[in-house]
Amino acid sequence: MANKPLILITNDDGINAPGLRKLISLVKHLGEIVVIASEHPMSGMAHAVTIQNPLRVRLIAEEQNYREYLTTGTPADNVKLGKHKLAGRLPNLVLSGINHGSNAAINIIYSGTMGAVLEGVIDRIPGIGFSLDDFSPHADFSHVDEYVVDITKKVLTDGLPKGVCLNVNFPVKNIEPLKGIKVCRQADARWVEEFEERKDPHGRTYYWLAGRFENGDIRNDTDEKALADNYVSVVPSHTDFTAHDHVNSIKFS
Amino acid sequence: MANKPLILITNDDGINAPGLRKLISLVKHLGEIVVIASEHPMSGMAHAVTIQNPLRVRLIAEEQNYREYLTTGTPADNVKLGKHKLAGRLPNLVLSGINHGSNAAINIIYSGTMGAVLEGVIDRIPGIGFSLDDFSPHADFSHVDEYVVDITKKVLTDGLPKGVCLNVNFPVKNIEPLKGIKVCRQADARWVEEFEERKDPHGRTYYWLAGRFENGDIRNDTDEKALADNYVSVVPSHTDFTAHDHVNSIKFS
Repeated sequence: MANKPLILITNDDGINAPGLRKLISLVKHLGEIVVIASEHPMSGMAHAVTIQNPLRVRLIAEEQNYREYLTTGTPADNVKLGKHKLAGRLPNLVLSGINHGSNAAINIIYSGTMGAVLEGVIDRIPGIGFSLDDFSPHADFSHVDEYVVDITKKVLTDGLPKGVCLNVNFPVKNIEPLKGIKVCRQADARWVEEFEERKDPHGRTYYWLAGRFENGDIRNDTDEKALADNYVSVVPSHTDFTAHDHVNSIKFS
Repeated sequence: MANKPLILITNDDGINAPGLRKLISLVKHLGEIVVIASEHPMSGMAHAVTIQNPLRVRLIAEEQNYREYLTTGTPADNVKLGKHKLAGRLPNLVLSGINHGSNAAINIIYSGTMGAVLEGVIDRIPGIGFSLDDFSPHADFSHVDEYVVDITKKVLTDGLPKGVCLNVNFPVKNIEPLKGIKVCRQADARWVEEFEERKDPHGRTYYWLAGRFENGDIRNDTDEKALADNYVSVVPSHTDFTAHDHVNSIKFS
């Protein structure tokens, strides 16, 4: 049993999300599995961690080489709990998803799915975030199976460069089969946002965030381009925010 | 009045934090000011945004060229509200802080202070996050005045490269004066964490996140090195998570 790789699995749509159940079913045979996920959906929680409150944890399923914990934490909290408390040893791999909704382009910065994966990277644990470009709770995940298994197996076998994880996105299912995998860059695409202003029954104003996604990045090697061309996009990602090109050009004197 | 630059100010310690009040007092004369900050402390909220609930906003102070709004949102929400709703026009600059606590090295990934600044960058608004390496609510900010004003003035005058913001950190005040500014890289330093396990009065377990910060990065041009040498650290930062060195080296076939 000690020879089996330890795989920590989490997500940001909550423990009952079909995407999480799909991911577990696809990789369960690849190692010892510890699932740590949140009671409530945590979409948009990014890399948030819980500092002001303590965390609660409940073991809700246990069988050979498989445990499942429910927590009150964020996705990043769940990986911290796994790394330091619940998994028993440092995981060999963090998997997160499959997210209901794209985490390509700027979406990574808001993503609890990728927050979890990046939290593993901080302790040099390779990780993969899987996301499908379909927000529906009834999204069709049937085209992703072999890709999830193959990418996971490859990372378990070959590892990843130090400090690097993979942000994997799948196009929504259509009549054509997926064309394959493209390793690519984060597109410089963003949300064109607005707030819907409404009045509550007491006449007080409140605001709902709304908007549409817009890609003005015309480069050929981006995740958005790969997805538009019906490829699986894989962006090697890290936790270094430095704009290295500008370290020597910005001067104070 | 239309000629004055519009400066959006926020933070992640809440609207009453001394660090925010300090920042406002230092830059108030440099433009038209819109302060948008949260009722409650938002430390560790990273780039979290509020999707499941609507936001509430209250105008709590207004004078010539100055407005102050209290919100129920996160730091990133506050910048979104400012950009799209409250500021009236796109701000010329986003300022965030002064944070009670360092946002150097890996702290940027958990930082609501920098989440706010990066949210501005998405819409090409230059921004600066200011943080002091002292978590105390009674932190001494008296050594930062001229640096906050000078860095803000320089960015208002010269701008910043497209898609770049500044992560500025100050050493805790000591008997020596600050030595100046160093433009540098995010150190590869991290928290060595653990969870304190406790029992509540009903015998149920709960967990508090705890830990100590550790820097194993021996490079000479990092923010942690600059701070240790009593310099102000300035890291040009961006929203691209791509590990560009590895886009061509990772292969699936």
